[in-house]
Amino acid sequence: MTIKDMLGRSSVVSREAALATLGAQFTASASVREVVPLSDALSRIIAEDLSSPEDLPPFSRSTMDGYAVRSADTFGAAESLPAMLAITGDIPMGVMPVRGIEKGQAMKIATGGALPTGADAVVMFEQTQLIDTASIEVVKPVAPLENVVQAGDDIKQGEAILERGHRVRPQDMAAMASMGIVRVPVFAKPRVAIISTGNEIIPADSPPVPGRIRDSNSYDLEGSIALAGGIAVKKGIIPDVYDRLREALDGSLRDCSLVLMTGGSSVGIADLTAKAINDAGRPGVLVHGVSIKPGKPLIIGLISTKDRQVPVFGLPGHPVAVNICFELFVKPILSRLSGEVPHPALAEVPVYRTVNAKLARSIASAAGREDHVRVTLERTDGVLWARPVFGASGLISTLVKALGTVVIPVNKIGVEAGEEVEVRLF
Amino acid sequence: MTIKDMLGRSSVVSREAALATLGAQFTASASVREVVPLSDALSRIIAEDLSSPEDLPPFSRSTMDGYAVRSADTFGAAESLPAMLAITGDIPMGVMPVRGIEKGQAMKIATGGALPTGADAVVMFEQTQLIDTASIEVVKPVAPLENVVQAGDDIKQGEAILERGHRVRPQDMAAMASMGIVRVPVFAKPRVAIISTGNEIIPADSPPVPGRIRDSNSYDLEGSIALAGGIAVKKGIIPDVYDRLREALDGSLRDCSLVLMTGGSSVGIADLTAKAINDAGRPGVLVHGVSIKPGKPLIIGLISTKDRQVPVFGLPGHPVAVNICFELFVKPILSRLSGEVPHPALAEVPVYRTVNAKLARSIASAAGREDHVRVTLERTDGVLWARPVFGASGLISTLVKALGTVVIPVNKIGVEAGEEVEVRLF
Repeated sequence: MTIKDMLGRSSVVSREAALATLGAQFTASASVREVVPLSDALSRIIAEDLSSPEDLPPFSRSTMDGYAVRSADTFGAAESLPAMLAITGDIPMGVMPVRGIEKGQAMKIATGGALPTGADAVVMFEQTQLIDTASIEVVKPVAPLENVVQAGDDIKQGEAILERGHRVRPQDMAAMASMGIVRVPVFAKPRVAIISTGNEIIPADSPPVPGRIRDSNSYDLEGSIALAGGIAVKKGIIPDVYDRLREALDGSLRDCSLVLMTGGSSVGIADLTAKAINDAGRPGVLVHGVSIKPGKPLIIGLISTKDRQVPVFGLPGHPVAVNICFELFVKPILSRLSGEVPHPALAEVPVYRTVNAKLARSIASAAGREDHVRVTLERTDGVLWARPVFGASGLISTLVKALGTVVIPVNKIGVEAGEEVEVRLF
Repeated sequence: MTIKDMLGRSSVVSREAALATLGAQFTASASVREVVPLSDALSRIIAEDLSSPEDLPPFSRSTMDGYAVRSADTFGAAESLPAMLAITGDIPMGVMPVRGIEKGQAMKIATGGALPTGADAVVMFEQTQLIDTASIEVVKPVAPLENVVQAGDDIKQGEAILERGHRVRPQDMAAMASMGIVRVPVFAKPRVAIISTGNEIIPADSPPVPGRIRDSNSYDLEGSIALAGGIAVKKGIIPDVYDRLREALDGSLRDCSLVLMTGGSSVGIADLTAKAINDAGRPGVLVHGVSIKPGKPLIIGLISTKDRQVPVFGLPGHPVAVNICFELFVKPILSRLSGEVPHPALAEVPVYRTVNAKLARSIASAAGREDHVRVTLERTDGVLWARPVFGASGLISTLVKALGTVVIPVNKIGVEAGEEVEVRLF
């Protein structure tokens, strides 16, 4: 296959087709597990269904400050006909009351205190009157279990509480703490190789060298990988030499779950990248060229090693294309490799923030191409305007100035100024 | 002031009033700076305006694979009347061409290659025909600067590129890498003290103890603080004893920018907490009681130490209230302490994801109270339904089952089943 064939109109596919092509062949998901301390579990993906080893709360508790009573003793009580009860003690927080209560008795209890045996309800202070240090009048009846949380009311012993594939939120940490789960089984974060290519590329910490530019794409990818829950593994800057590229790719296939190649932007490098992917294993290159802008020269490959499948992306060299291609193509794959199973009701809800705005300037787009237009936002007289940031996709400054992107779908040839658009916020 | 006064109707204020009361007195913002390596700068807040030390790109570059030419040599060229140019060399990537080109000459150049002196445009391969190894015909004219990015076209030396208060995104990392900025001045992450209180509270890693429950709120807070860009500093579990509480508070004021007290849920502890805040410094307790559910017993205080102001929150002990109060009250303060200055156009755009859904069941709410109702989501026949998760705010399981919250504003007494609501996703 020649470069022309590969980049030609005939082989360029839509975004959906590109994702579907990879999705049809890539069947792997997260499998490696590790156990982390609860404090490190935030945003990690639960690797096995967790159920509670205990009842929560472990004992019946009061939800009010008041008196633990037998509810039957209060039935019929009223301001005009209060029920008189004997105070037989004060339940300190943090201990199980040794004595229970009997007919006609009450014990003082604070919110969270353990209910004594015999008691089945709590009367709030506000509905009692202290007669002397040893007795109260209850002026309103309480129902059985009123102002009480019973043992297991929150979570029952053995009850499933967090499912495999769930991303840990702060409240999930609290729930695990309540149950005494302080070591959490999670999926290992996927390791993502970043191979920067290009004879002209020098490290970011290098002083300027005539004719050379610094490696910047690997930093965009490093940040994007971290936000998506992966571990970036930088494989260094590789010159445009087949053997070196192939060596870096083979090394990455051994120790990473996903490989991103980026940097060079000439057709020559795209050709080398495609060849390295095809030579490294089967099925090799699945997609070469996607009908999006920026990002058209994207290469998507898949390589089966002896124990797993590793997706390999040949990202275009332009900084804006790298960023957009990561969002559209790499992130969904990384999410799958992370082991996350989104809640089914949220399957169609974007994983990013969006905001609606009016387009400040008309944008033209070629038919048959999906455009991702960088925009900044302005609020004028209460109206939010999305203003396109113009500039070639090689200009990183356009991406820094932008607050998000607007998509012009493949079947539209543009959007008129004043039309309402949805902005995908960065 | 008695407890009754503090929790009474008269002193309970609206969410807006509570935030405004604190906002009127709390004037501090981020000040402590640190320098981090570029790879650690993701999501950190830039502490000083950054401008580029260099032109970017540092030299004029080709944006196409083709020939570097003097555009004037191609004027008038056409298929029928091609311009003949002599190939005088091949510009390798990564070096500045030593020879320039003169009238009638062209040099082969790849995308990203450095333009030789004398050249002011690049002709794409597709618009040339190779005559022999030493000459080409150009069949279409190129304009001056066509297919060329000039030095400084992306970012000019001295141009402001990232502002103080900006939160670093992946593309910002790429831009800094391009400019050789590999050490980034950022604001130190705010340290947030978590003081867990309650005689009944035991550590999360403790086996069950009769009458006691495990510390869970500190884990919810730890996770929420991390997501909001702060550093959680756990001050341990403090018994309900004034001196111990005061000691923990004073210690926190010395080494943290924000203090969260939580755990005990009885009125007795709220009283101790308020007293400790009032005694620790001026102005002390600003708000005690907010007209929201859950979260009504919230205490908001402010303490001026000799060099700064430290907000202190006495969070209700119920796990759901802790979570909601953090989102509504603590997060905005933490954002301010982080030094982040949101883009003005985004000031009114929620910082969280939202989704619209139809309410699956009617919810009642008391007038004069803002309810934050936990909901889960279901998709039926393409319609997204928000189903309230009922249960007391003491039940952490309700928060684990929920996917977000729906707000019933203070002026509404409920929402009918079938009404469209906005769900704030966790």
